[in-house]
Amino acid sequence: MMLKELRDEVYEANMDLPKHGLVVFTWGNASGLDRERGLFVIKPSGVSYEELSPENLVVCDLDGNVVEGELNPSSDTPTHACLYRAWGDKIGGIVHTHSTHAVSWAQAGRSIPCYGTTHADYFYGDIPCVRSLTKGEVESAYELETGNVIVEGFANLDPIAVPGTLLHNHGPFSWGKDAMAAVYHAVVIEEVAKMATLTELNNPKVQEAPQYLQDKHYMRKHGPNAYYGQGNH
Amino acid sequence: MMLKELRDEVYEANMDLPKHGLVVFTWGNASGLDRERGLFVIKPSGVSYEELSPENLVVCDLDGNVVEGELNPSSDTPTHACLYRAWGDKIGGIVHTHSTHAVSWAQAGRSIPCYGTTHADYFYGDIPCVRSLTKGEVESAYELETGNVIVEGFANLDPIAVPGTLLHNHGPFSWGKDAMAAVYHAVVIEEVAKMATLTELNNPKVQEAPQYLQDKHYMRKHGPNAYYGQGNH
Amino acid sequence: MMLKELRDEVYEANMDLPKHGLVVFTWGNASGLDRERGLFVIKPSGVSYEELSPENLVVCDLDGNVVEGELNPSSDTPTHACLYRAWGDKIGGIVHTHSTHAVSWAQAGRSIPCYGTTHADYFYGDIPCVRSLTKGEVESAYELETGNVIVEGFANLDPIAVPGTLLHNHGPFSWGKDAMAAVYHAVVIEEVAKMATLTELNNPKVQEAPQYLQDKHYMRKHGPNAYYGQGNH
Amino acid sequence: MMLKELRDEVYEANMDLPKHGLVVFTWGNASGLDRERGLFVIKPSGVSYEELSPENLVVCDLDGNVVEGELNPSSDTPTHACLYRAWGDKIGGIVHTHSTHAVSWAQAGRSIPCYGTTHADYFYGDIPCVRSLTKGEVESAYELETGNVIVEGFANLDPIAVPGTLLHNHGPFSWGKDAMAAVYHAVVIEEVAKMATLTELNNPKVQEAPQYLQDKHYMRKHGPNAYYGQGNH
Repeated sequence: MMLKELRDEVYEANMDLPKHGLVVFTWGNASGLDRERGLFVIKPSGVSYEELSPENLVVCDLDGNVVEGELNPSSDTPTHACLYRAWGDKIGGIVHTHSTHAVSWAQAGRSIPCYGTTHADYFYGDIPCVRSLTKGEVESAYELETGNVIVEGFANLDPIAVPGTLLHNHGPFSWGKDAMAAVYHAVVIEEVAKMATLTELNNPKVQEAPQYLQDKHYMRKHGPNAYYGQGNH
Repeated sequence: MMLKELRDEVYEANMDLPKHGLVVFTWGNASGLDRERGLFVIKPSGVSYEELSPENLVVCDLDGNVVEGELNPSSDTPTHACLYRAWGDKIGGIVHTHSTHAVSWAQAGRSIPCYGTTHADYFYGDIPCVRSLTKGEVESAYELETGNVIVEGFANLDPIAVPGTLLHNHGPFSWGKDAMAAVYHAVVIEEVAKMATLTELNNPKVQEAPQYLQDKHYMRKHGPNAYYGQGNH
Repeated sequence: MMLKELRDEVYEANMDLPKHGLVVFTWGNASGLDRERGLFVIKPSGVSYEELSPENLVVCDLDGNVVEGELNPSSDTPTHACLYRAWGDKIGGIVHTHSTHAVSWAQAGRSIPCYGTTHADYFYGDIPCVRSLTKGEVESAYELETGNVIVEGFANLDPIAVPGTLLHNHGPFSWGKDAMAAVYHAVVIEEVAKMATLTELNNPKVQEAPQYLQDKHYMRKHGPNAYYGQGNH
Repeated sequence: MMLKELRDEVYEANMDLPKHGLVVFTWGNASGLDRERGLFVIKPSGVSYEELSPENLVVCDLDGNVVEGELNPSSDTPTHACLYRAWGDKIGGIVHTHSTHAVSWAQAGRSIPCYGTTHADYFYGDIPCVRSLTKGEVESAYELETGNVIVEGFANLDPIAVPGTLLHNHGPFSWGKDAMAAVYHAVVIEEVAKMATLTELNNPKVQEAPQYLQDKHYMRKHGPNAYYGQGNH
């Protein structure tokens, strides 16, 4: 069986989704990339988290074809493949969920403004809401076009500085250096989405946080002079 | 004791209601149909989930008469019986709860609009809110008339494509091919209800998701060309 | 040690408060009445739920004097005593909490309208919000006057049909035939309070449920022709 | 190893933060002061709660220099040090979190009004929201200036009577006689923040609780004639 270590990591990432309250039933999936081999490991479609194991994950190539696995891969596989083709040099893990608050912003068709440092610590600027797919896109290669719409929406954004997005009328996608980092960003999106709704309730005229504060917090954790944590970044 | 297997299944379905956070105390019930025999198994009335067992469930015929069981069946039994009489060829399980967000839409007297794919994956179009009962209906055969009002509200709807409803001033009823499917749809209603409230908070002018997206998602899981999951549908 | 059985029951009732998510730290208390002896058992003041035992509960007479117990009784003891003096022929248990949604209605100074059957099953009409105490009342015998304000607010209400209230700027008080029934009604108030806030968000012009529906649901569970449950009421 | 007892206490305080739902991942920290020695113990930066132990906490002096410990101290260490320098005669523990509802008020830039007794029991008057840092402050010594802004905002406030604050665009800081008291006040801020949002939803024209009620509740627990609890304050 291929990619034992990556299977274990992607299994852990998938299991963390219900643990963090991001997923009910099978409404979510995580994948992880083996950049050298040009393969990624992803959750099988419609399989419950109780039945999941490192062994029944599916290995796909970057065109989304199954390379190893008995089960059908997640129906979102062409989306994952598309993002790895576009950004595989920068990202190594992808997560998609239907977490409650993130979905509610995606359904509202709004990007999440940066109202404070919780957001600024992980996302540089808005968490963007990319456009809904057209009729033509939905009716042709829906999941592939989902990936294309995300890549299009990031034409002027760095997927490292903005490690996730909302797809209008759908929900959140996130990514990171590996599958666990993508899970982490999925948690951040959900928490920040909830805070932003409450912030606007508490002050309908609220403004975004000052740009210099956004710069500071992002750079404190991610820039060349980062000083948060134990230096192992 | 009759219907051992169905009792086990209906027991599991009832126990899943508090597990999914849909029920406090005894505010919910699930039933399952044996189509061949024209009988259904239902939770006894006012019995706590701790005391519930496959053995103390009640077997009723399609007129709601007790066929086997020491305890009174759920006070909602005439509603279940009515729905099985109307749709017994299509549905095999029914759930009623007072889950928080679904009740809040039912109390508001509003159908839940389809704002995104989480909804569209399981409900084709709105989750309808059927009318409140009239004074005459409430004072005659209340629980039976509850069933009649639901059937009336579905005159132009397919209970397979729309596997649940809200009863104005009351709460959600859901159904499916069996008791566990009805539980699944009860979870979907609660989650979608919560998302819809938050969506409208985030954007008071929000529009429903495009019809072509609703078509795609429903057909992706339920049409003849469904491709979600492992093909066992 | 007096009143062993009642101590056990009041202990269980107190322990159920954090279990149902109604209490953080020591922000709640339950008591139970021994009508024959004219005594009640109540939680000691400021003692954590981890440290609570049937043995360290405090026994008081109907003037609120300690009859047995090493610890100070709850600072709300004069409120409990006042309600037992007024209604001791009808009620046998009292609960006070600072549960989140009930407090938010109490702070808003609004009675909770009856928007549906979840409410109507347990409360006949509004859950009333009684007036804030005057400066004079607060500065003289605060906790006793709290009881007097509740009794005053119920001049035209039956504490059996309306087993709880909100005190303006403070929070919920509930009662019932015994301590466990008072806990049950505390859970109902919290859940109904949450549903009512969400109902108004979903429909700012919502109307109360029809009176005939309120009558039906209350009588279905509480009138002489009640038919909910197993007949042991 | 220094300060064994204080390490244990600060460890417990840190572990209570996720237990009370105030922290996800590493988004929070608690510290405790040894007034005699002029040292404080604080959580290391970016270390998960699973990996935390009394032994890997970091000991700092009041200038924020590490006195004992292998790991980097929390990036918020200069803020803690600043508050201990200003108020070390009055407070012995500090907590910072990004708890959801408190952050949503901090992001809204609003002080939390005192709407009722839950608030008045622990905070005398508003929970203030102190100003956002200027560009110059953020770009020079950010975490130190954070402390200075809090101290500036409390020029006319007593940190004992008001044991916490919100920092605009950031989140809550709380304190108390020791680390566990600071955790307690962090829980109070989060709960009161949630109640205040809901209170305003339920009544957009709500007024603050009467001053005499605020006085009474605070004095009932904290004044020289306090009578809440078992007298060990």
